Amino acid sequence: MPVFTEYASSSRELRVLPSFAPPLPRLSPNPTSNGEQEKYEVVIAGAGPAGLMLNLLLARYGLDDNSLLCVDSKPGTLKSGQADGLQPRTLEVLKSLGLSDEILCEGCQMWEVAFWNPSEDKDKVIERTSIVPDVAVPARFPHEVTIHQGRIERILETDLLRYSKRGVQRNSKVVSVKIDESKDPEYPVVAEIETEGRRRTLRSKYLVGADGAHSAVRRSMGLKLEGESSDHIWGVVDLVVDTDFPDIRRRCAIHAPAGSVMVIPRERIATGDYLTRLYVQVDGLAKPDSDQTPVGDLDRQKEEAKVRRSQVTLEGIFAQAVEAFKPYYIRPKVDGAIDWWAAYQIGQRVANQFSVKDSKGMDRVFIAGDACHTHSPKAGQGMNVSMMDSYNLAWKLAYAVKGLTPNSTPGNPNPILDTYHTERHTIAQQLIEFDRAFSSMFSGKIGTAEDGVKALSHDEFLEVFSTGNGFTSGCGIEYPDSLAVEKTLEKNIQNPVSGTDYLGGCLRPGRRLLSIKLKRHADGYPRDLQDDFPSTGRFRLLVLTSDDLLNPHGKSAKALSALSASIISRSPSSLVEQVVIHPKLPRPVFDWKDIPSEIKLHSEMRFYSGFTIDDAYATYGIDPQKGAIVAVRPDGYVGAIAALEDTERVENYIGRCVRLLP
Amino acid sequence: MPVFTEYASSSRELRVLPSFAPPLPRLSPNPTSNGEQEKYEVVIAGAGPAGLMLNLLLARYGLDDNSLLCVDSKPGTLKSGQADGLQPRTLEVLKSLGLSDEILCEGCQMWEVAFWNPSEDKDKVIERTSIVPDVAVPARFPHEVTIHQGRIERILETDLLRYSKRGVQRNSKVVSVKIDESKDPEYPVVAEIETEGRRRTLRSKYLVGADGAHSAVRRSMGLKLEGESSDHIWGVVDLVVDTDFPDIRRRCAIHAPAGSVMVIPRERIATGDYLTRLYVQVDGLAKPDSDQTPVGDLDRQKEEAKVRRSQVTLEGIFAQAVEAFKPYYIRPKVDGAIDWWAAYQIGQRVANQFSVKDSKGMDRVFIAGDACHTHSPKAGQGMNVSMMDSYNLAWKLAYAVKGLTPNSTPGNPNPILDTYHTERHTIAQQLIEFDRAFSSMFSGKIGTAEDGVKALSHDEFLEVFSTGNGFTSGCGIEYPDSLAVEKTLEKNIQNPVSGTDYLGGCLRPGRRLLSIKLKRHADGYPRDLQDDFPSTGRFRLLVLTSDDLLNPHGKSAKALSALSASIISRSPSSLVEQVVIHPKLPRPVFDWKDIPSEIKLHSEMRFYSGFTIDDAYATYGIDPQKGAIVAVRPDGYVGAIAALEDTERVENYIGRCVRLLP
Repeated sequence: MPVFTEYASSSRELRVLPSFAPPLPRLSPNPTSNGEQEKYEVVIAGAGPAGLMLNLLLARYGLDDNSLLCVDSKPGTLKSGQADGLQPRTLEVLKSLGLSDEILCEGCQMWEVAFWNPSEDKDKVIERTSIVPDVAVPARFPHEVTIHQGRIERILETDLLRYSKRGVQRNSKVVSVKIDESKDPEYPVVAEIETEGRRRTLRSKYLVGADGAHSAVRRSMGLKLEGESSDHIWGVVDLVVDTDFPDIRRRCAIHAPAGSVMVIPRERIATGDYLTRLYVQVDGLAKPDSDQTPVGDLDRQKEEAKVRRSQVTLEGIFAQAVEAFKPYYIRPKVDGAIDWWAAYQIGQRVANQFSVKDSKGMDRVFIAGDACHTHSPKAGQGMNVSMMDSYNLAWKLAYAVKGLTPNSTPGNPNPILDTYHTERHTIAQQLIEFDRAFSSMFSGKIGTAEDGVKALSHDEFLEVFSTGNGFTSGCGIEYPDSLAVEKTLEKNIQNPVSGTDYLGGCLRPGRRLLSIKLKRHADGYPRDLQDDFPSTGRFRLLVLTSDDLLNPHGKSAKALSALSASIISRSPSSLVEQVVIHPKLPRPVFDWKDIPSEIKLHSEMRFYSGFTIDDAYATYGIDPQKGAIVAVRPDGYVGAIAALEDTERVENYIGRCVRLLP
Repeated sequence: MPVFTEYASSSRELRVLPSFAPPLPRLSPNPTSNGEQEKYEVVIAGAGPAGLMLNLLLARYGLDDNSLLCVDSKPGTLKSGQADGLQPRTLEVLKSLGLSDEILCEGCQMWEVAFWNPSEDKDKVIERTSIVPDVAVPARFPHEVTIHQGRIERILETDLLRYSKRGVQRNSKVVSVKIDESKDPEYPVVAEIETEGRRRTLRSKYLVGADGAHSAVRRSMGLKLEGESSDHIWGVVDLVVDTDFPDIRRRCAIHAPAGSVMVIPRERIATGDYLTRLYVQVDGLAKPDSDQTPVGDLDRQKEEAKVRRSQVTLEGIFAQAVEAFKPYYIRPKVDGAIDWWAAYQIGQRVANQFSVKDSKGMDRVFIAGDACHTHSPKAGQGMNVSMMDSYNLAWKLAYAVKGLTPNSTPGNPNPILDTYHTERHTIAQQLIEFDRAFSSMFSGKIGTAEDGVKALSHDEFLEVFSTGNGFTSGCGIEYPDSLAVEKTLEKNIQNPVSGTDYLGGCLRPGRRLLSIKLKRHADGYPRDLQDDFPSTGRFRLLVLTSDDLLNPHGKSAKALSALSASIISRSPSSLVEQVVIHPKLPRPVFDWKDIPSEIKLHSEMRFYSGFTIDDAYATYGIDPQKGAIVAVRPDGYVGAIAALEDTERVENYIGRCVRLLP
């Protein structure tokens, strides 16, 4: 467009920068400062995936560098090893933060799992029993991604630096924490921080220990990990392999006569080569000290485990892998070119409490990630469950700090904070139970009965794998009843949802809203519904109208009008947003003037046909003649479901979570 | 994975950074430097979309800051106005550079076009005649995206800074250029650069003028824009509107009795509001000076146009829009909050030559973007065609500089560089022809015959719009026969492609390879084929094998073996990559050992089932019993197609473009 005379208003930097998440409003007074004492509203110990996720979310919600401090003992993000798996639900969350592109494009998308078992043909030794999809439940991203943990950390930290000038305070760790309400009751948490040998004391309103399995925060607060260790020792190796094994780029469970190996294909690296991670069972390399390590005596267990693990060498792990892969060969592509290796012993432990209250009953110190649950790496859960701990805690903490929950005046107990333990402890328990079952089956041998141990059939193993898929994908987890999850309906109230295929998308309080594809009214854009539920800390009302939407006196019109008056117009600064879906209507073509004005007013760009692409009503289990209102929490989990006529129940639910204006 | 003993090899930063594009190998000597004279291999004048795209591509191909300089007169990227539309083919190219995510997620995806015309019902005034898809041809992204040009520039420049320390040299412009072979024949291009009033002279091997419609490079080199201007004057406004017009979020062509308006929905901005661009015909606001502006007398035309445009005001444009939208209201959402506005006169001009040679016949100076073609903005082509000029030139220039073309010794004419003019001048001609037809129809009135001008029917307008879609989407353009596009088959050779639905994907030299979805053999990952054709400057052989692939002596095996020996193993540093697709085979399950070893050797992660998801053979027009070999250029356009038996022809084609090792 070269030939013109042009006139522009003032320079508009914000037109060219990537979008910033809109901060949450603040109803509480701004934080005080008395100059002398270093004080923050929230302190985070640790900047692994759990700590960084929390830090980033709180920064996006509007806690600035004066309000928020995150310290980490490492000098930078991780460089090799450790976690490498992202589950479908974690990918949905990263997408909701606009952070999934590099991961999806440059990570290794893992779509299939191959099972290899002993062959009856002696020459074959092992054979492929089956190939199944890696993820068997509906999800926006129906696959896992493997990618180096350090890269996830770098992606989170890079984005953090758009919102925080300081970023993570490195080479610094929390060495002790206590709650002291005597001096400065608004900032009762006292933490000792050590930076390169120098110690300082600081105070905060809240502190979160995301400082790993050896958490100083957990120890300081007297919280205990409970659980046990097993005898099985495994080695794990990251490398570029040269092999003629046909399924090296699929996730594989190999139960060979010579031992078990798990293959995890990994991302492409700078050389153009593709990494592979191998988990190799190496019990034989270490001498068992006793038949049964005593449960509960953690110190002795740890000591023994350390001795046994120290007997494991890279050469030993590799020799064992070579045996298990036979008759196929496997070797490092370049001699000695091993990225990273480790030996570990399977153990499942979980903390009895995920938070500690002050004397008034207010939760003040939290633990998240490895600090509250440890387990085997084999189900690929660690990094995911850890980040999801933070994802669960972040909005609750931000609401508490910013005075967005009802009665959240300083010092008053805040019941929404209690739901962090309720919800995440439930998931951690399920995690270690699944991991125990999965790991022990994986360490068993298929088709052989040795030492009186019952042989494991391939079908049994496959069943544990498949039924666990809802859990391991992250898509099937369900939070229990609480202030923030309204499961119980009063007696005379009919459930607006029919059907129980919750994994398939049927709506259920406590479960995440499945993404479906819908056509937008305003512009015909076929969109993923989850894109209207970004992680900006907002509650949303998802209104599935009934088919009387064109009737200005119908129940849909009444519901939209009531929600507008009782919730949306009373929520501070768009803290509650509205998304509307309509079923097939008696007249196929209609305009804004034909439907209740609240739709254009509140939801012009969040209003969809619920049937042109996916069938929203069938998927979610809602009768198009009746409709429903779904309250969705800031983390994308369904909080409450009500009939269109029952807007009062929605108002009550939102009113318990959000401080609505009078 | 907390309980372990770990061992990591050296720190590996490259595991955590985003991937870098692999540079092209260099067969030519490194550039000389004599210290005194500032010298570069390539100088780019201008850092708008065309200049930045070229700069980024050359930097990714491995031209470093000593080899490459880009100057721009502006202090930074654009802040408002100008171009805003990205076509499906441009989106494919941005995706091939890993730069599409922000654009797709935060731009405005434009999926539908609404046509509004005079209504027979006098009260209605105008009515919607139809809604049609905005893009009617198969494309990886079947929609356009509107987003501020400055944002595209920022995305390109941010990525550039990963490869170049200097980035764009700002506040600097090329004021004159000449070719002087007498002093330093290797660096014959002499450019005068002005930086904040200070002038300096520098030399280069090549110089590209991407310096806009008033290009100093074009003027210096004596190249002429040819074409004419029309009488019609249009106003363009970017703003957030308040309106009850039902299709404000769709692209609209409104032919109202009161005049024509085009609505372009735009991206969401930082306030949460959505921008709209309006094109408004404002002929009535300006006094026509003559019935016909004389063709060819550009200076007089320009002067007159300037006077007429200066009579146009924002208020005038808006008053005209208000009339055209009646009975609907339209106004700025906030009084006076206009982002940007301009008045322009439709004109179509194209340069007679896109490059200038030295005395030996070597192309030395090129022009790209608005410097070589100007036209109306209404078809949304400008930014796209400009970037695609650079996309076409970049690999040819990089090959010339790095000595990757045959006989490309210093000073020797390089026939591949000639194809830049041949190919892009063809497209520019088509562009201005389409634009002339589209613009004049758009400026006409529908359903009325005035002043003896024939009335335009809606169907006629719709037909121009639809048949133009192959061109405007960028997906249907076809480069003519040349060294790099082998269209002519010798007499006795049968075309391996049957069918002529080239827009539908049928293979055709000179057209881009349509992306299809295929399942990868190694890991079952359903991938977009274009993801194996990233813009890294490599040629690719796409081998569609025949169904005899399992036969070690079949024609597929022979072709793969011949290509490996004659091309792939002779191409410097993976300059030619191989992608393989197979049709349904007699045995559905097979492993690497059952197929020619060249597939795993060269294409382990680029080997697909051609039928499990999309039907590659049907889409591309290849008989599964015969197969074919397709040579694809670094810019994704098909260069040559040969039968499986005819590897010699592929070798000849590649050998003309790439300097194969002996």
